[in-house]
Amino acid sequence: MEKLDSAVASGRMRRLKPMLASMHPAETALLLESIPRDKREVVWNLVPEADHGETLLHVNDEVRAELIDALEHDTLLAATEGLAIDDLADLIEDLPEQVTREMLRAMDIENRERLKVVLSYDPASAGGLMNNDTVTVRPDVSLDVVSRYLKQRASLPEDTEALFVVSRYGRYLGMLPLSKLVTLDPERDVSEIMDTDIDALAVDMPASQVAKRFQDLDLISAPVVNADGILLGRITIDDVVDVIRDEAEHSIMSLAGLDEEEDVFAPITRSARRRAVWLGANLATAFLASQVVGLFSEALSQVVALAVLMPIVASMGGIGGSQTLTLMIRGLSLGQIGFANARALLAKELAVALINGILWGVVVGGIALVWFGNFTLGLIMAAALVLNQLNAAITGVAVPLAMKKMGIDPALAGSVVLTTFTDVVGFGTFLGLGTLFLMH
Amino acid sequence: MEKLDSAVASGRMRRLKPMLASMHPAETALLLESIPRDKREVVWNLVPEADHGETLLHVNDEVRAELIDALEHDTLLAATEGLAIDDLADLIEDLPEQVTREMLRAMDIENRERLKVVLSYDPASAGGLMNNDTVTVRPDVSLDVVSRYLKQRASLPEDTEALFVVSRYGRYLGMLPLSKLVTLDPERDVSEIMDTDIDALAVDMPASQVAKRFQDLDLISAPVVNADGILLGRITIDDVVDVIRDEAEHSIMSLAGLDEEEDVFAPITRSARRRAVWLGANLATAFLASQVVGLFSEALSQVVALAVLMPIVASMGGIGGSQTLTLMIRGLSLGQIGFANARALLAKELAVALINGILWGVVVGGIALVWFGNFTLGLIMAAALVLNQLNAAITGVAVPLAMKKMGIDPALAGSVVLTTFTDVVGFGTFLGLGTLFLMH
Repeated sequence: MEKLDSAVASGRMRRLKPMLASMHPAETALLLESIPRDKREVVWNLVPEADHGETLLHVNDEVRAELIDALEHDTLLAATEGLAIDDLADLIEDLPEQVTREMLRAMDIENRERLKVVLSYDPASAGGLMNNDTVTVRPDVSLDVVSRYLKQRASLPEDTEALFVVSRYGRYLGMLPLSKLVTLDPERDVSEIMDTDIDALAVDMPASQVAKRFQDLDLISAPVVNADGILLGRITIDDVVDVIRDEAEHSIMSLAGLDEEEDVFAPITRSARRRAVWLGANLATAFLASQVVGLFSEALSQVVALAVLMPIVASMGGIGGSQTLTLMIRGLSLGQIGFANARALLAKELAVALINGILWGVVVGGIALVWFGNFTLGLIMAAALVLNQLNAAITGVAVPLAMKKMGIDPALAGSVVLTTFTDVVGFGTFLGLGTLFLMH
Repeated sequence: MEKLDSAVASGRMRRLKPMLASMHPAETALLLESIPRDKREVVWNLVPEADHGETLLHVNDEVRAELIDALEHDTLLAATEGLAIDDLADLIEDLPEQVTREMLRAMDIENRERLKVVLSYDPASAGGLMNNDTVTVRPDVSLDVVSRYLKQRASLPEDTEALFVVSRYGRYLGMLPLSKLVTLDPERDVSEIMDTDIDALAVDMPASQVAKRFQDLDLISAPVVNADGILLGRITIDDVVDVIRDEAEHSIMSLAGLDEEEDVFAPITRSARRRAVWLGANLATAFLASQVVGLFSEALSQVVALAVLMPIVASMGGIGGSQTLTLMIRGLSLGQIGFANARALLAKELAVALINGILWGVVVGGIALVWFGNFTLGLIMAAALVLNQLNAAITGVAVPLAMKKMGIDPALAGSVVLTTFTDVVGFGTFLGLGTLFLMH
């Protein structure tokens, strides 16, 4: 990858072509993401045409939109050929209307209907993840009949490791793994040997829940049914892996106010605009903290040590609070934490904060004493630090729970709100105690 | 889950037993993680014995170690029965030696040998992830022969969707998906129809690279070979999903100085000790910033507005820098960012920082002007903010790259180092400019 990047950087494009031809579309997609925008079109033109569709699928949303903008309609149309229905459904929202129309015209009726069905579901639900190319069999036939039917079909859709058993009315009954079909006595009936322990997923189940189910039960594929239990399609784990990764990335990017689909080389103005919002939100909280500091200007001008030491109390509170917040955000998303066990958790976090508050309060107070030779100042510093650690624990537990109740993603706004509390309380207690005990 | 948690909280244990009996071990594990430590053993005793092994596998490392400590040797021995070899290998490191010995004695020779082989590899490598229950066939036989062989076997290992084709000497040649076996002409030879496009994974390939390969190529299972190309086993995607999730969690937890296996209800002293290290590291950087502030005590005592406004410049730098840092950490772990494209990225981040620095510098300077009625102060504030945003962009790009070069995980220590830079430069430029232009 490094070698490719430097080939791009130094403009030795000719050398790239054979390299790109031997790369998997996922690797090509990564390369496209890792080079500056102005070079992407040049590299794209060296990608083998057969890989165009898969490569578009593998780049992130932002880079994909950019490439689609830059490409000719004919090239796009050719790229969509040979893609699976669920992949096409992912791509279609980004395609220009004219390309979509021509693509639909070129498809056969069966596939067009399938695509329409998949598109009718929320992309972030089981329906949006599923592929409707299931192969079904009846429960009352023998394995031998199934085997003969499969020989007649002569092929199975990609990643088929089980057939689905349905009733005459299409209701889902169970799964018939190919591993059973090939090992068990051909005389036996499907109904005797089918697996019935995997519950079908409801078509409107949220994608995050689907991902959780796959992880918990170690599934490789699962049936999707409507409210009447009629089989609509199947979800395979490779689509679920994308959901799992996206969710994890969402948390880490949200905590910094970024979008998980953010292109590393997004246009400068677009990046700046997005991040400006985040900086602005933080600025508002920083000014709030400043207002609190402003209340104590009398003390600050008399005892300059207060100004020197005040960032420490606030910053230690922010660090402690962000540890609790991170534990909460992960716990909430895994389902480990809810309102029922919040009290027990708060008690534990308060105890941890108290221990660390006293430990580091003594250290910090001691340093302040040595530095400024003022015993009262050391004591004030220690007390403020303990109070702010306790405040950080309460805020760290309460803020994400409150946000969840209000339907706001704690990962997105939690850290801004938390820092506001730890700054305001940190500056307030330290300078307040300073005013009380150090002013004459 | 909420209902279960409240049943535990209110002590209505009797009601729990039927609920636990109907739950999947993964759900039981989540329940155990979500209740305080002192109640875990009581709940564990209500878990059906048949689920003991799977439940132990699903709880996180810390809770597992705690449960194993609390359980009788006989209970543990019974729990290990019926587990797959790769799962046993995961569990065995945590088991008391005596249990391990008895367990090995109770196993048949073939399984014991298999377990020893899996245990001989690094758990974080392809060898540690693999299962060695592969079913192999020769390339020169017909599908019909394969089918008859499978009927004779009468069963296949869990999650088998392909057989592995090997030479007479055990060298890996290709995969034979069951979906081909059941659809294609039985007269054809294995060698004609086997898939040869999936490269085998080297047994010492790091787990993170294995995960990447699975994601990129949408694999469901893959062969593992030694340096001579001899087939050693196979990795299935359900094991890889755990790696993907753990890696994502590692990043988010590391950024707050936490361990990804941290138990929500870890013992208070253990939690406090772990977090104390992180707070201590941050304290050192906070004192460094304070030292810088201390250099300007003369200016601070004369112009109290400097003390009131100085946290803003530092905090905005920290926010901007953490955005760049997060983008870098994700980019480095995805492979989007390396040394080859770092310069282009730095140029982009600097441009974004300049735009946002000027935008918010003007806003902040304006507010300072109105608040304190001092034009020079507003100008100083704006200039310091712009400079610190630029500093944040440089630090945000350089620190993770430098850490990577030094072999340190940027997710773990990046934010401490970054904040040191943004605090020191933020306080330093603002107070330095203040000393130059506001003192008389």
